[in-house]
Amino acid sequence: MSCTENYAGICPAALDYFQQANNSGHELAYGDDIWTQKVCDALRDLFQTDCEVFFVFNGTAANSLALSALCQSYHSVICHELAHIETDECGGPEFFSNGSKLLVGKGENGKLTPDTIEAIVTKRSDLHFPKPKVVSITQATEVGSVYSVEEIRAIAAIAKRRHLKLHMDGARFANAVASLNVHPSEITWRAGVDVLCFGGTKNGLPIGEAVVFFDTHLAEDFAYRVKQAGQLASKMRYLSAPWLGLLENNTWLSNAQHANAMAERLYLYLKELPQVRIMFPRQANAVFAELPLPVIKGLQAKGWRFHQFIGAGGCRFMCAWDTQEETVTRFAADIKQLSEAIEPV
Amino acid sequence: MSCTENYAGICPAALDYFQQANNSGHELAYGDDIWTQKVCDALRDLFQTDCEVFFVFNGTAANSLALSALCQSYHSVICHELAHIETDECGGPEFFSNGSKLLVGKGENGKLTPDTIEAIVTKRSDLHFPKPKVVSITQATEVGSVYSVEEIRAIAAIAKRRHLKLHMDGARFANAVASLNVHPSEITWRAGVDVLCFGGTKNGLPIGEAVVFFDTHLAEDFAYRVKQAGQLASKMRYLSAPWLGLLENNTWLSNAQHANAMAERLYLYLKELPQVRIMFPRQANAVFAELPLPVIKGLQAKGWRFHQFIGAGGCRFMCAWDTQEETVTRFAADIKQLSEAIEPV
Amino acid sequence: MSCTENYAGICPAALDYFQQANNSGHELAYGDDIWTQKVCDALRDLFQTDCEVFFVFNGTAANSLALSALCQSYHSVICHELAHIETDECGGPEFFSNGSKLLVGKGENGKLTPDTIEAIVTKRSDLHFPKPKVVSITQATEVGSVYSVEEIRAIAAIAKRRHLKLHMDGARFANAVASLNVHPSEITWRAGVDVLCFGGTKNGLPIGEAVVFFDTHLAEDFAYRVKQAGQLASKMRYLSAPWLGLLENNTWLSNAQHANAMAERLYLYLKELPQVRIMFPRQANAVFAELPLPVIKGLQAKGWRFHQFIGAGGCRFMCAWDTQEETVTRFAADIKQLSEAIEPV
Amino acid sequence: MSCTENYAGICPAALDYFQQANNSGHELAYGDDIWTQKVCDALRDLFQTDCEVFFVFNGTAANSLALSALCQSYHSVICHELAHIETDECGGPEFFSNGSKLLVGKGENGKLTPDTIEAIVTKRSDLHFPKPKVVSITQATEVGSVYSVEEIRAIAAIAKRRHLKLHMDGARFANAVASLNVHPSEITWRAGVDVLCFGGTKNGLPIGEAVVFFDTHLAEDFAYRVKQAGQLASKMRYLSAPWLGLLENNTWLSNAQHANAMAERLYLYLKELPQVRIMFPRQANAVFAELPLPVIKGLQAKGWRFHQFIGAGGCRFMCAWDTQEETVTRFAADIKQLSEAIEPV
Repeated sequence: MSCTENYAGICPAALDYFQQANNSGHELAYGDDIWTQKVCDALRDLFQTDCEVFFVFNGTAANSLALSALCQSYHSVICHELAHIETDECGGPEFFSNGSKLLVGKGENGKLTPDTIEAIVTKRSDLHFPKPKVVSITQATEVGSVYSVEEIRAIAAIAKRRHLKLHMDGARFANAVASLNVHPSEITWRAGVDVLCFGGTKNGLPIGEAVVFFDTHLAEDFAYRVKQAGQLASKMRYLSAPWLGLLENNTWLSNAQHANAMAERLYLYLKELPQVRIMFPRQANAVFAELPLPVIKGLQAKGWRFHQFIGAGGCRFMCAWDTQEETVTRFAADIKQLSEAIEPV
Repeated sequence: MSCTENYAGICPAALDYFQQANNSGHELAYGDDIWTQKVCDALRDLFQTDCEVFFVFNGTAANSLALSALCQSYHSVICHELAHIETDECGGPEFFSNGSKLLVGKGENGKLTPDTIEAIVTKRSDLHFPKPKVVSITQATEVGSVYSVEEIRAIAAIAKRRHLKLHMDGARFANAVASLNVHPSEITWRAGVDVLCFGGTKNGLPIGEAVVFFDTHLAEDFAYRVKQAGQLASKMRYLSAPWLGLLENNTWLSNAQHANAMAERLYLYLKELPQVRIMFPRQANAVFAELPLPVIKGLQAKGWRFHQFIGAGGCRFMCAWDTQEETVTRFAADIKQLSEAIEPV
Repeated sequence: MSCTENYAGICPAALDYFQQANNSGHELAYGDDIWTQKVCDALRDLFQTDCEVFFVFNGTAANSLALSALCQSYHSVICHELAHIETDECGGPEFFSNGSKLLVGKGENGKLTPDTIEAIVTKRSDLHFPKPKVVSITQATEVGSVYSVEEIRAIAAIAKRRHLKLHMDGARFANAVASLNVHPSEITWRAGVDVLCFGGTKNGLPIGEAVVFFDTHLAEDFAYRVKQAGQLASKMRYLSAPWLGLLENNTWLSNAQHANAMAERLYLYLKELPQVRIMFPRQANAVFAELPLPVIKGLQAKGWRFHQFIGAGGCRFMCAWDTQEETVTRFAADIKQLSEAIEPV
Repeated sequence: MSCTENYAGICPAALDYFQQANNSGHELAYGDDIWTQKVCDALRDLFQTDCEVFFVFNGTAANSLALSALCQSYHSVICHELAHIETDECGGPEFFSNGSKLLVGKGENGKLTPDTIEAIVTKRSDLHFPKPKVVSITQATEVGSVYSVEEIRAIAAIAKRRHLKLHMDGARFANAVASLNVHPSEITWRAGVDVLCFGGTKNGLPIGEAVVFFDTHLAEDFAYRVKQAGQLASKMRYLSAPWLGLLENNTWLSNAQHANAMAERLYLYLKELPQVRIMFPRQANAVFAELPLPVIKGLQAKGWRFHQFIGAGGCRFMCAWDTQEETVTRFAADIKQLSEAIEPV
């Protein structure tokens, strides 16, 4: 199992467009090429709405720039305590926004609830604390769970009432869509999301994420922001063209469906093992499980690489677009064997 | 002729390593892969010294992050008034440094001189103006000229005397090395340069620049800076491996030599035309020339794309690693024909 | 003569209110006291319009925060090359705005013209350069000149046409009003100014400037900005109450009229001296004059303190609210005597 | 009782120096005046060591600028979850540092412990989370408790071991010194504190705090930082001279002793009331007590103003340099009477 989908390579459809773009000879720079225009249109088609699309290099940049467009330095962003923007972007959101504070809330399975948001937004209303201006949710979440359409709508309602913009960190957006089996618009603009960071890297691209503004007013001068922040690719086609590979034939979705199915497969194996405790519902492409320490060590000794998470024994197993069925089988068998070998304490 | 080398594609040697890296299966992320380790070592070999190497996505990021590592917000950076950091990075250096001011100087052929630097650094010494802390020079310059070894040494001497760090924007570093026909260390650390932004994109990469700290103390915690700034690639191998293609067999240098030779070829044609005025010495891969407006319009009508520069009539013609001899010939012929067709005013 | 009005103390009317505020016992903090409410109303009365008023500690903060409210980091501010924000605030505007670039223009007597602004705003329209969003003018200027009502209106017209906000650095606003002999609204909101930094320190306060938003939409959440930036006084009454002293009986205006009259007096003396060249029209409370170096040295030897300005021989003589007639007479006499003592070269 | 010491006026000794400074006629600006020099020396005498002293306008600025001097944007600051920098500065530290994250820890009575610090500093060591660089403690704390000499030493030891700088927010430093009855050096540099923000406003000044660098290397170019951040007073004497009033005859200490004594007096009354629960040990000039809601309402109806804190019923009663014994008596009597009037539920 992989620590993260970032260990995987480029999916064939994306690679094909990368090569096509390279073979097309000299092309205009900075996004004026034909590939970039095409993929922007393709994303508008996908979401069935007018929207503004920007390509940036990675997820930290996508989230940080999107959030910066939604608030000023003296504002704050409400997010879950496990949100990537809080735990894994090295203060990127604070840096790009010149100081906006993240206000973290708790919530089961890595998900914010309307009540948590309401409690945070109403806690303070004085000048001495940054004014909440944005809610950021992660779909799928950092612990592999997925917000339902109804949950997003409920969060959007409280956001609207409290004059908060709604940002979605969609590093694993495709996995969430695949999990819910809904149209992507249903969990974004139709549910009240203002801006989506649509992850490409974990879905099979070499590099790059798309920032999609459904509220196009919020995208005013965003191109300047991207440029100033060192996120405007000169040879943009290499960032954008591979997206055509993902979007054509819904490869983005089938990649995600495959990864989710592999995670489900792993989950089905693990849930039968008495020594293993499943930590969060398996909804996207991850399984979080608590394993005995000797099992963890044994797996590592066999060369399996995965992320340990939230204290002793917690493990994160991610499946990627290219995870093989037999890899899952082999991995599960190793866990089983190692678990059974433990002597009772 | 191209407006910029950014219109060109990926050079074969770089593409080959890109594909090799992709074919290697799952790899560690964030630079812990073997490709990244290899290319860092290769760069240390190239420069014949210990140095700290970081890969970032583009030139604005490379320059802005390097400068931020050399000064605080209340410091200033001395550069030429035509420097890319001043004219074409949309305030990136000011953004990343949280406000460092660029103090611009004039100088023939786009080059700063020790006297200009001395004049700027000694002009103010009060608290009410940002304290100079860095000199930034561009090699090759924005107008296609090249600092000689002696010129860089002289600038480094005044920088040392005035306690200024020396940064080199090397977006076209390869073209400068090719032009001077010296070892790359001669115009960097052996001449007193503290940090180099070594351009890969204009030299045949799809994406990416290297930041090379010769003064390794200055690189302290720079990896955190890169991460926070949204410049740490998760699938780093796609950024780093292509550099192996450039470095192996000195492809970076032959790419640059070719581009320079094509520019020289164009220059030799143009200097013979009485209607054309060469604006700057041809030293790297660019020819800057003043053309009659009807000629410019005629070229555009024929589909040639190039950048207009510094007022009416000034044109910038860049040659890339893949510029064809016959393209140059055809372009020069078009200019000649259009020029001769102009009726005398 | 003084180098600057900042050498002067507190004018009696301001001191009186400072003491009254102190004698009033315990008062609410952070501006909820009665003094602050009163002075905000008094400023609205003075300007004959609804406006939002904030008190901050000094001019760098007033200008920097006001400009930050008008633009984002990837925008730019057009100002005169001699503007205080460019030359004497140590990069404060760039720091508070997180990187907004100042685009400097030339112009006679320290004044921007509509043509200069138009030239700057139309020079670039690409993403690679910060987009102009604000014009900042200084009234009275750094060289003691004053924009006429018509000049401000013409600048406001071009600003409106080009979608630029208009900021006025009014560190010496009172002197400008006194010089023009117009109602203060005539050179601010009635002429198209969006926000004014109304200087108190140079007019007789111990500490403090007022930021006055005539376009009240621009003041949205500005109180948070002030707080975050360390500019919200806890014992606000000491910052605000003295303003009542300035506003009552139009002391702010009579202070300025006196200072201007003293400058005129000095000017009348100096213009008669053949060895002295007046550098800029005397319109506010400053006289700028070129003096022979031996005269400058002689004055310094006699203990006179003043600022040297723009190269050898240029001197800035400022008059304050408390400059005595006899001081001016004595100073002018010293200049005369020293000048006549110089042997002809 | 007052919500905060910021409601109080200027203490007579400080006011006297304010007036003396005003009567001294024209003075050099920006800290070159004699008052500022004197008070810097007086502070060095007080602390019995060489140190660098800067005066800024308020506590948010003092803390934010000091912290910015100790870390970069990608670093983090460890503080208590109730620290003023976390809860009441509207993101000032994040703004001035361009994004440094505050990592909050819990701890009894508002105090950090070495173990809490160790746990935070060792929790993460990867690039994806800001690297801890500073510990900030508040002395006296936000809940009126005081770190002992030993506690500070222990924190300094862990800070040293983990390469963290040690910052002390001393908004109520005087009250802490008075409470501990030690020499001020004992709880600062002799215990390992690198920089102290010494609060003046709450101790009887109209405006202003001192930033005292015991590690003078950390103060390099700090004057530029202060200037750029809009914290350099032009008429500095009004900020600095009043400090002479505080320092002469140890008025700063007697002011604090008085405030502490009044708090003790209140505490002695309140602890006898069965309806009142004391929330934190009374060590400095505050009493935190839980009161029945009808009592709180009754006190407010009688015109008493105080801060409610941490949920229903929690109240903060602060004593100032000028709190009268009879005020305390009257206040306590009101609480007693209101408490006894409540019918048993």
